[in-house]
Amino acid sequence: MKNFTYEVPTKILFGKNRVTEISSEILRYGNKVLLAYGGGSIKQSGLYDTVVKVLEDGGIQFVELSGIQPNPRIESVREGIRLCRENDVQFILGVGGGSVIDCIKAISMGVDYKGDVWDFYIRKAKIDKVLPIGTVLTLAATGSEMNGGSVISNDETQEKRAAGDDSLRPRFSVLDPSYTFTVNKWQTAAGVVDVMSHIFEQYFTQDKGTFVQDAIAEGILKTCIHYGPVLLEEPDNYEARANMMWASSLALNGLTGTGKLFGDWATHMMEHEVSAIYDLTHGAGLAILFPVWMEYVLDETTAPKLAQYSRNVWGITATDDRQAAQEGIAQTRKFFTSLNMPASLGEVDIDGAHISTMSEGACKFGPLGMFKKLGKEDVSAILTKAL
Amino acid sequence: MKNFTYEVPTKILFGKNRVTEISSEILRYGNKVLLAYGGGSIKQSGLYDTVVKVLEDGGIQFVELSGIQPNPRIESVREGIRLCRENDVQFILGVGGGSVIDCIKAISMGVDYKGDVWDFYIRKAKIDKVLPIGTVLTLAATGSEMNGGSVISNDETQEKRAAGDDSLRPRFSVLDPSYTFTVNKWQTAAGVVDVMSHIFEQYFTQDKGTFVQDAIAEGILKTCIHYGPVLLEEPDNYEARANMMWASSLALNGLTGTGKLFGDWATHMMEHEVSAIYDLTHGAGLAILFPVWMEYVLDETTAPKLAQYSRNVWGITATDDRQAAQEGIAQTRKFFTSLNMPASLGEVDIDGAHISTMSEGACKFGPLGMFKKLGKEDVSAILTKAL
Repeated sequence: MKNFTYEVPTKILFGKNRVTEISSEILRYGNKVLLAYGGGSIKQSGLYDTVVKVLEDGGIQFVELSGIQPNPRIESVREGIRLCRENDVQFILGVGGGSVIDCIKAISMGVDYKGDVWDFYIRKAKIDKVLPIGTVLTLAATGSEMNGGSVISNDETQEKRAAGDDSLRPRFSVLDPSYTFTVNKWQTAAGVVDVMSHIFEQYFTQDKGTFVQDAIAEGILKTCIHYGPVLLEEPDNYEARANMMWASSLALNGLTGTGKLFGDWATHMMEHEVSAIYDLTHGAGLAILFPVWMEYVLDETTAPKLAQYSRNVWGITATDDRQAAQEGIAQTRKFFTSLNMPASLGEVDIDGAHISTMSEGACKFGPLGMFKKLGKEDVSAILTKAL
Repeated sequence: MKNFTYEVPTKILFGKNRVTEISSEILRYGNKVLLAYGGGSIKQSGLYDTVVKVLEDGGIQFVELSGIQPNPRIESVREGIRLCRENDVQFILGVGGGSVIDCIKAISMGVDYKGDVWDFYIRKAKIDKVLPIGTVLTLAATGSEMNGGSVISNDETQEKRAAGDDSLRPRFSVLDPSYTFTVNKWQTAAGVVDVMSHIFEQYFTQDKGTFVQDAIAEGILKTCIHYGPVLLEEPDNYEARANMMWASSLALNGLTGTGKLFGDWATHMMEHEVSAIYDLTHGAGLAILFPVWMEYVLDETTAPKLAQYSRNVWGITATDDRQAAQEGIAQTRKFFTSLNMPASLGEVDIDGAHISTMSEGACKFGPLGMFKKLGKEDVSAILTKAL
């Protein structure tokens, strides 16, 4: 087990009606707020009205940034920064899913920076001073509500890039499972895949001696496998939504990655390239790519860990590691398909036209992955197999 | 799943030589420190000298409180409070195991309180202002390094009582597994039992729909079962010590209890009565009492959860819940015995002389437990079965 520092101060307000408690949390930092959200869904559901009332009752002034898109765009970030500067905003509240939260993190890091905020995403600038943020989560998927990471898309350059810092962890996050009752089946399934993928990225590494982290990771994976199908049948099953929501936050708040070097993240990087060009739902892209990646990296060095996954999560009994690994990969693909997630790029109308661009982009900063290092040719081969 | 608030800001510095980083952590709060520890073991190991050098190099002034005993006594707490007041101490650093940490928490809550600090433990006073604390852990057992709980013994009244508050969570804790290499077999085994017992207390409840919490709990239990025997054979196995140390903190930092009403805690309360009179090692007392408690509470309402434990942790395949539960309880007892922990009070020279006093004491504030409520007669029956 590697040395690690674990510091996750985000206060989680979990359960029904916890949103009524946010004004006292916000007022620790100031009473001038940027309220950021996506499309009209929070207006239809009534959540927007509830939040506005809580802020007004708390004597909190706010300006609004709306229309943040899935795969949030750098233009929204720049607009948010402008609003924060013009209104001396002291705190940013994001109401929505991972896209809204990633967007407010970008705004948070950009307000006090002289240059363009995209600099943070192309590693030209380092995150320094940030505005405190809080979130009201409406989608269980990205884990952004309890971590310091942010992914932003730039249509001009056709790039989707990540930046992050511990200082960007939300000060609080409201996790009310009932807000996710209205998430449609496609987004719900994509969320389940996203959560599982976050675990995969941290689980499939060459680190040794991380038994407790792996056992916790396996428990979170089993939670997803247990409740995924329930959610497609019963979208307003509180227990299922609650377990997925908490699993989602725990999957990417640092817990399962402690004691490991870094994680793999090759599949995420590849998916970012695909969705940067095609605006594909992140979880759907991961459902296509992960089983292909697992098959591609399976060799003597990776078989034992893939077999451990297969046995502990899927109950595979094969004693041969390679065979166990293959059976576990097959179960994974079958599970994603049972959630009506696509199994190939072709199913979502993506052909091979941009494979070369995507392979170049994925390896822009060098080879991908830690479980098995992947160069441009490997990425190209994986994307081709995924067609 | 019940509503919950989860806020665990303790910064964990995990791994080799992390103690060298504590002065910057302490200086956030001040440069006048109380350095608290137990017996001579940290002087023998050289850890005391290391800590002193780090403090001196950091320009930190300190006074010392030594001789804190296992099952820490209220006298040490009072002495610590006096030292803090006389020296305008701004931060308390505890170097040791759970006893030292529980003692500094008591000091922390008592410094600014006008009355006697024992008031907090008999529910006569509420914790208000606290001094910030930090820890350098030398024993994997109590989880005190990442939570806000404290247990103190009062020889005058023959009581061992708990108090706690989130504000008492250490600001940082250094978890260096190599400091536990020299922990003897008895204390190591008692620590493993203590960690498992913390999970049991939060796992065996009547709460419904806490799949993810339970899956994580089962993962931590499997970690203990995997590494417990390794540690008795290879006390300086870093991987085994590291996994037990991190498992220990995660077992009682709130993680596995989220979404549940409270936990059971009957067995801990009973054990506190025993060790208040007999000064028994806490983990050894728990090893005796837990299997007896499991057998005693097994009925129609508790069998499903005990069977879940048996199947998911011990791989029991019995389909009947009662039978599965019984087999799991037998495995639990067998495992504790394999760690050379006692299986009866008689083995540690405790007879039935004080059972009536202990039963009265355990139920001082009302019936025990949530999994199954236990009155005085139940406690008496359990202690008698444990003889």
